[in-house]
Amino acid sequence: MDFDEIQAKDLGICMAYLQKFWGDYADSRASGNVGPSGFHYNDLEKLIKEPLPQAPQPLEHIFDELDTQVLPNTVKTAHPMFMAYVTPPSLDICALGDAISSILNQNVSFAKLSPAGTAVEGKVINWLCEIAGYSSKSGGVMVSGGSMANLYGLAIARRTIVGDPAIAHGNYADPRPQRIYCSEHIHRSVHKAAMLLGIGAENVCTISADQNHRVNVDEMERKILEEKECGVFLPTTIVGAAGTRVCGAFDDLKRLSELADRYDLWFHVDAAFGGALRLASPRPAELDYLGLADSITFDPHKLLFVPFDSGCLLVRERQHLLDTFAVEGEYLERSRPPGVDYADMGMQLGRSMKALKVWLALKYIGTKRYGEELSKLMDLARYFEELVRKDQDFELLAPVASTVVCFRWRGGEKRYSHLLNDTNQSIPARLRNSGVAFVNQIRINGMDGVRVCMTNFRTQKRHLEALMEAIKKLCSDSMTS
Amino acid sequence: MDFDEIQAKDLGICMAYLQKFWGDYADSRASGNVGPSGFHYNDLEKLIKEPLPQAPQPLEHIFDELDTQVLPNTVKTAHPMFMAYVTPPSLDICALGDAISSILNQNVSFAKLSPAGTAVEGKVINWLCEIAGYSSKSGGVMVSGGSMANLYGLAIARRTIVGDPAIAHGNYADPRPQRIYCSEHIHRSVHKAAMLLGIGAENVCTISADQNHRVNVDEMERKILEEKECGVFLPTTIVGAAGTRVCGAFDDLKRLSELADRYDLWFHVDAAFGGALRLASPRPAELDYLGLADSITFDPHKLLFVPFDSGCLLVRERQHLLDTFAVEGEYLERSRPPGVDYADMGMQLGRSMKALKVWLALKYIGTKRYGEELSKLMDLARYFEELVRKDQDFELLAPVASTVVCFRWRGGEKRYSHLLNDTNQSIPARLRNSGVAFVNQIRINGMDGVRVCMTNFRTQKRHLEALMEAIKKLCSDSMTS
Repeated sequence: MDFDEIQAKDLGICMAYLQKFWGDYADSRASGNVGPSGFHYNDLEKLIKEPLPQAPQPLEHIFDELDTQVLPNTVKTAHPMFMAYVTPPSLDICALGDAISSILNQNVSFAKLSPAGTAVEGKVINWLCEIAGYSSKSGGVMVSGGSMANLYGLAIARRTIVGDPAIAHGNYADPRPQRIYCSEHIHRSVHKAAMLLGIGAENVCTISADQNHRVNVDEMERKILEEKECGVFLPTTIVGAAGTRVCGAFDDLKRLSELADRYDLWFHVDAAFGGALRLASPRPAELDYLGLADSITFDPHKLLFVPFDSGCLLVRERQHLLDTFAVEGEYLERSRPPGVDYADMGMQLGRSMKALKVWLALKYIGTKRYGEELSKLMDLARYFEELVRKDQDFELLAPVASTVVCFRWRGGEKRYSHLLNDTNQSIPARLRNSGVAFVNQIRINGMDGVRVCMTNFRTQKRHLEALMEAIKKLCSDSMTS
Repeated sequence: MDFDEIQAKDLGICMAYLQKFWGDYADSRASGNVGPSGFHYNDLEKLIKEPLPQAPQPLEHIFDELDTQVLPNTVKTAHPMFMAYVTPPSLDICALGDAISSILNQNVSFAKLSPAGTAVEGKVINWLCEIAGYSSKSGGVMVSGGSMANLYGLAIARRTIVGDPAIAHGNYADPRPQRIYCSEHIHRSVHKAAMLLGIGAENVCTISADQNHRVNVDEMERKILEEKECGVFLPTTIVGAAGTRVCGAFDDLKRLSELADRYDLWFHVDAAFGGALRLASPRPAELDYLGLADSITFDPHKLLFVPFDSGCLLVRERQHLLDTFAVEGEYLERSRPPGVDYADMGMQLGRSMKALKVWLALKYIGTKRYGEELSKLMDLARYFEELVRKDQDFELLAPVASTVVCFRWRGGEKRYSHLLNDTNQSIPARLRNSGVAFVNQIRINGMDGVRVCMTNFRTQKRHLEALMEAIKKLCSDSMTS
């Protein structure tokens, strides 16, 4: 029996299972525990120990394992008490998009292999460029996420500053270490990207930030000037943060852009998290200047509520992408018009129709409704900030710049202050293990605390109130016991 | 109305649409034209010109566009006459996996964010390592595809050969240009990876191959020895091909491994295409030695019939992955055991449950049935090779080493020989535009021809016969017209 015959008899069964799975999950994802109680690999022992299957397994057996092993050991990112990292709940219509993408199995890296796939990605890039504030000369490419987009942005920066020799001879084209300037609060993926690019993590020159977590631009300028003049280094890039990794703050993009212009540097902005907030009203003022960036990291799998993996690198001038990534192979037909194939705009030569889910989401929700939802999340953050301020058991650890609130429990009395770090450190794991809520641990200025991201369209004020009550209860209990 | 209320009323409609879409596509994907006639962006004008949606669009409107704009402009990679690149048809159960992955929207980069997602990926890596011939010390990570896996492999090679200074100081840690040795037939992604790594495309030292497209190992050794001795270069890596990009040939992995040992180099094998052929019987003999590689690129989205994006980087010793990619951030809890989180084994800090579809495919098909199917594809290639050999209108352009056949039409008579390149160049586009078949153009030793990949479980002998007839007809027509 060939694969097609096998599949033909099973397709209906797969679809019926999916329908039930999806329906049941939609009914339960916003209630009950946020995740499994603790992180017990024992529950997964059967799965972990399974030998490589020789014989085919019956569908009912496979589905049973999905139901009993996989599903119960997942975390409900859709749950209103899930407020960790920047992992918003995803839209159902995007799951439809991913299913269609898999069914069609298009290779979107080449236009002839998928005219529609290329067109849909082009459209999505177009729309994201417009949201980011770019003009018609802009372009971009879908990638797996923010880390990869930052990597691409820094690669394009190098190619543009160092020129063609960077492609042929790499960093050996110029013996001076390339230098990247950014905030101490920049996302760690910038360091990882510098490592991968052969630039080295230590050539990411981190500049201190002010109490609002905004990079100190004057200090950055002094540093650039000093390194330009000494002649030992090759300054190439400024990276701005539109949504810092700790508390979602925004660097002064206008001044950073001016700095980049003044010293002929590339200006990349990591707006993986913050980019979509351009749709909010009022939006963070710094985002008025996002379009000044030479390249932008923008993750639909963050505040556009698209599921993983959906990242995007946008460039102000599309040609820069091509200059960096276009490499020819003998089996690629020469007849193709330049700049049509996404293979020429990134590393991947085979890639799914991953733009389809973003296309569906933007059409289904529309920018107006996105804007309303994002404004609501910013309001929610301000509401929570007020809750924290008003309650003497808590204190803020950082200003609230967008939708992220960092705070700590400090107890009703001060006598336990030496234990505060330990107690606060334990909060996320204890909330998680009890299934009550999923939040992050954070350390700011030596103080351990809790980080809550308002990135969930199901979270309401009452959930925030419940979160504070739960933290109070477990901290008081542990302090008095 | 909040997003959840909007979705609640539409979920049933989405599921019904998916069910119809999937069923209809399954019924039609193996018949009719392989793809749209030509590459006419005009058909897509409505899609391409659509302004950024402000207001939400009704589902029926969106579905209508999927049906009338998107679907007709896709290529049927599932069609038995689709034999291009290495884009096999995908298994239906994998679309179920991708849908579930999107519905659950897990971040598999952190175990606590998805115990099951981490366990499923661990299991899949385990199984792929076993298929590749690795021992229990091995490990790996899912990536988007072969290009990214080659990039990771070369990054790990650098970290291992240059040591920790490569992380901190990049390529500046040692001023000698790092050198990578491989066949002239290596996949172009190796050059792209070298570019991205700041090593430079010209530091990929390509060695000529013999008439069987296997790299000349003696020549490679002479080159390595010469470059080691002159002291100008820093040899780091040998890349072997298990399935060359042109004709799917296999380098002598045993001898390359010995060479790497002798000169203390990292040995990476690009088995993106060929890795799964370890399951065939008889399998290509060179694959007996795949497990000697320090790292292996292995794409489930190739011969395991998993849809895009499904790549994998495997390492013989898991620790090497961690040494290269583990970078800590302040918001990552310190309590996690080392080596549990996939964030420590690659660039991505947010990633879907992309292993789920591979897990489903391996359980659903089983290695035995995979082996039978892959053996059948190799038989099919030999059958087609015979067809070409026996027909005086055709000639082979390269030996058939696995499932790839490169040949050209040479006409019944010799009088048109000066036009043969033009004619052969036009074959793929003409077959594609007429909807008859999808094959690749290839150029070998200055001769243009056609490349056919037997990577499709729906392709039968009769389809190959039909392909030859179609080529004969269109070439004779154009020669006599």
